[in-house]
Amino acid sequence: MNAAPSPFKRVAIIGLGLIGGSVGLATREFAHGIVTTGYDADPAVRARASELKLADTICETAADAVRGADLVILCVPVGAMGDAAREMAPGLSDGVVVSDVGSSKESITESLTSALPGHCIIPAHPVAGTEHSGPEAGFATLFQHRWCIVTPPEGADADKVSQLVAYWQTLGATVDTMDAHHHDLVLAVTSHIPHLIAYTIVGTASDLEDVTRGEVIKYSAGGFRDFTRIAASDPTMWRDVFLNNRDAVLTMLQRFLDDLSTLKDAIEDGDGEVLFDRFTRTRAIRRSILDMGQDDSRPDFGRKDHG
Amino acid sequence: MNAAPSPFKRVAIIGLGLIGGSVGLATREFAHGIVTTGYDADPAVRARASELKLADTICETAADAVRGADLVILCVPVGAMGDAAREMAPGLSDGVVVSDVGSSKESITESLTSALPGHCIIPAHPVAGTEHSGPEAGFATLFQHRWCIVTPPEGADADKVSQLVAYWQTLGATVDTMDAHHHDLVLAVTSHIPHLIAYTIVGTASDLEDVTRGEVIKYSAGGFRDFTRIAASDPTMWRDVFLNNRDAVLTMLQRFLDDLSTLKDAIEDGDGEVLFDRFTRTRAIRRSILDMGQDDSRPDFGRKDHG
Repeated sequence: MNAAPSPFKRVAIIGLGLIGGSVGLATREFAHGIVTTGYDADPAVRARASELKLADTICETAADAVRGADLVILCVPVGAMGDAAREMAPGLSDGVVVSDVGSSKESITESLTSALPGHCIIPAHPVAGTEHSGPEAGFATLFQHRWCIVTPPEGADADKVSQLVAYWQTLGATVDTMDAHHHDLVLAVTSHIPHLIAYTIVGTASDLEDVTRGEVIKYSAGGFRDFTRIAASDPTMWRDVFLNNRDAVLTMLQRFLDDLSTLKDAIEDGDGEVLFDRFTRTRAIRRSILDMGQDDSRPDFGRKDHG
Repeated sequence: MNAAPSPFKRVAIIGLGLIGGSVGLATREFAHGIVTTGYDADPAVRARASELKLADTICETAADAVRGADLVILCVPVGAMGDAAREMAPGLSDGVVVSDVGSSKESITESLTSALPGHCIIPAHPVAGTEHSGPEAGFATLFQHRWCIVTPPEGADADKVSQLVAYWQTLGATVDTMDAHHHDLVLAVTSHIPHLIAYTIVGTASDLEDVTRGEVIKYSAGGFRDFTRIAASDPTMWRDVFLNNRDAVLTMLQRFLDDLSTLKDAIEDGDGEVLFDRFTRTRAIRRSILDMGQDDSRPDFGRKDHG
């Protein structure tokens, strides 16, 4: 039997928006004894993070924030990872684990490895979030009962991987490990394509001439509103995700378009059997998601005005 | 000033699933003094409806259920409207208002007008529902703070339209009137296309070879699960909607595909500006939906595990 991995002592959080702020708050609430430092490139966010106590100490430079840390977590948009890494590099200790929370792991692994040669890089991705962003959006329980995927590059130090896994478990997450390439395919279908589609239909609906925007909003309870939540997500974050997970996104998008084309043909041809068959199969997936505790079965998830 | 329209005295509900059951329960709770009768073609549903008291009396034939009613509401799938109308026709009183709750108004207006010549047909559509179906799924508050669209055919009796509007208001809905053609365009974009897309992506995700179904389910919190709720809706109802609102659905689908193609090109070309611009515009719509009270701003609508 292996001994439990020794916990990190000092965690530096670079980027203090929804995820970074939640990491700080969750560490204070669930990982007793760990000291946190925080940094954000935006002075206004640093000031707000101080007031909200998102980390024990908010530093004025990235290099100061990471000094003495044995774990650094980059919580910046995917496209800003390389620059953020270079900015903090002068402060990094030997033996530090550098991790992140980004949604596209192959490109981040590459940019961190090239920005921080010789350092131990272990990317990770907590699959959790809300449509809100910024330092006010964070909360300590964001990662409870959510998955966190750790993607250790080949040859990563096994003890340090175990330390990182244990840290995320302490914050409430269930941890899986897989390689970065597979992560990017999985997330393309479970997260990136849904966001792309949601952004698209919300855009389509707001540009119509024969149906007013007021009508779209009024009648959104018919299904449309389910898409507006994720289409309200942070634009910078999502721009970077699509630019950085391009190949997996385009692969999955083509499969979606092929399937949509089949349904479109069925509607054109009045083929009710194809429609009924497709619509029946999708119910099983919903049931499994409820069984796994990844969603709430109450009508409209317990939205107000409903039982 | 017009006098308030006199309320209906006896309402017959044909079809006792989610919507029909909710109409019965809402009438008992909010429209005191109205007697309800109910009928469903499925004997098992009639038995369950009796136990659940979805209407004051559950009848063994459609003609019995509508006898003496001054309002009949057809709550059957869109494709079953004509047959249900013919089945009940022998029991209809002179002066009765025949209405429905279907999601596609042009085709229903045609099929009811042809099945019930000489009768007063005033179609309606409460824009409310959940992904659950069947007699157990109904609840009295389903229509509270939801919209109901009434689509009076040309020449419809204005007093009877007012009576129907007042009835839906009593059940808690806010009522709009518009013509059936416009209704079908509005619903194509706010409801039918979102359902078609959701059914498609959930189907795509469940058929992949390089990503397992277990992985899709585990990581669904990244966005995918928002689509699974509406993709779990009743397959018969939705098959009929697509077959019956074909033209409006295909028109709106083409616009969605054009917009998706623009975003796909931007991803292929690495054009971050186009992506950022699109992703920014969609936030405003979400804000308006929240302001109109048509959704809940809590993270994940107050799903469990979230503050």
